[in-house]
Amino acid sequence: MNARMSRAIAIIGGTGPAGTGLALRWARAGETIIIGSRDAARAQKTAETIRSRIGADAQVSGMENPAACAASDLLVLTVPFEGQAALLKQLKPAIRPGSVVIDATVPLAASVGGRASRTLGVWQGSAAQQTAELVPKGISVAAAFQNVSADVLSGDEDLDCDVIVCSDDPNATQVAMELAAKIAGVRAIDGGKLENARIVEQIAALLIGLNMRHKGHGGIRITGLPDNAFMR
Amino acid sequence: MNARMSRAIAIIGGTGPAGTGLALRWARAGETIIIGSRDAARAQKTAETIRSRIGADAQVSGMENPAACAASDLLVLTVPFEGQAALLKQLKPAIRPGSVVIDATVPLAASVGGRASRTLGVWQGSAAQQTAELVPKGISVAAAFQNVSADVLSGDEDLDCDVIVCSDDPNATQVAMELAAKIAGVRAIDGGKLENARIVEQIAALLIGLNMRHKGHGGIRITGLPDNAFMR
Repeated sequence: MNARMSRAIAIIGGTGPAGTGLALRWARAGETIIIGSRDAARAQKTAETIRSRIGADAQVSGMENPAACAASDLLVLTVPFEGQAALLKQLKPAIRPGSVVIDATVPLAASVGGRASRTLGVWQGSAAQQTAELVPKGISVAAAFQNVSADVLSGDEDLDCDVIVCSDDPNATQVAMELAAKIAGVRAIDGGKLENARIVEQIAALLIGLNMRHKGHGGIRITGLPDNAFMR
Repeated sequence: MNARMSRAIAIIGGTGPAGTGLALRWARAGETIIIGSRDAARAQKTAETIRSRIGADAQVSGMENPAACAASDLLVLTVPFEGQAALLKQLKPAIRPGSVVIDATVPLAASVGGRASRTLGVWQGSAAQQTAELVPKGISVAAAFQNVSADVLSGDEDLDCDVIVCSDDPNATQVAMELAAKIAGVRAIDGGKLENARIVEQIAALLIGLNMRHKGHGGIRITGLPDNAFMR
């Protein structure tokens, strides 16, 4: 295992559209990716699909979520909100000390049969804050990537959106911003404390509503801030 | 009173930075503006300042809030959240049947001594939904302009942001979008039902946090939607 492999990105729930899209973009940027899934065969199939799109150099493998989790200290969560808490309880023993968990989860009301353009109230304030409560002590959580269109990620065009990163740990913020900036067309910005994820998560529901109403793949850009506020 | 005057824009709380900035932009676009304030003298002083900036042609007057309200059927609310409910109770008898109320209020936690980068939970879901409950029956409410920087509005440069309009009445949505599109650099977009104001209001708190952290005057643009989704 070389230095690169020790910083593989494990995408938990990586066979869904958002996880697969992120994996594609990061693999294209030369990162080593582990696709995690409940089903190892599905994870391997997604990894194979990505390799076939990018070429033989692509470092993408697939395994069950707990194995993916144990194989990396950089975890990206792209699971539906309704599965998040149970999954984190299952993964807890497998999470390596010092790991950074980047949570892209949005608590859409669709999780309980409601609309994808509405959110649920989460006791802790946001899905990402719930994650922070469920991971082992000392594990840092950053919220990011909630507002990046899975459809656009899965394509070949550059993106046209910003990623707002929220975390209570400056190191986790930095790691998440660097990952965001690896996606062509994305600018990353420090959005402050993890508690602010409650707003960023809700923007995802607003964008889903705009997508339904106006037929598109909405994202957001922040305007009016100095250029050095962004990492790209 | 000519046809134009019958569609004057009354800006309730128009002596504050957001109200004054909107008045300046709309007066510049040739609209007739009534600045409303608790204090008629202050309202007249603000009107005079705007006229002196724009020139003798500017149609801007100032009066007490209830008089402003009675003089127009197009009301724009730019009052601090902590004063909103009491003001609406005071104005209720003065609101003309068939009026459209455009609410720019954000329920910032600063209203109760907290931070401007956090919001309060409003029982009805959002400040705009509270407004809808407090206006007379049959009066339409649209939520808009929460995310437009007052500092930028007060300047001379074109804006660089979108205005998301939420309302349960298509006519109110249309009126608010037309007003937004009169501001140079602003694109207006239909954000769906009034209930979505709860998300748009929270974006204002997020932007305030970004402004503090990164020293700027943040706004948002929606990307990834077809051009015909926007009015400009």
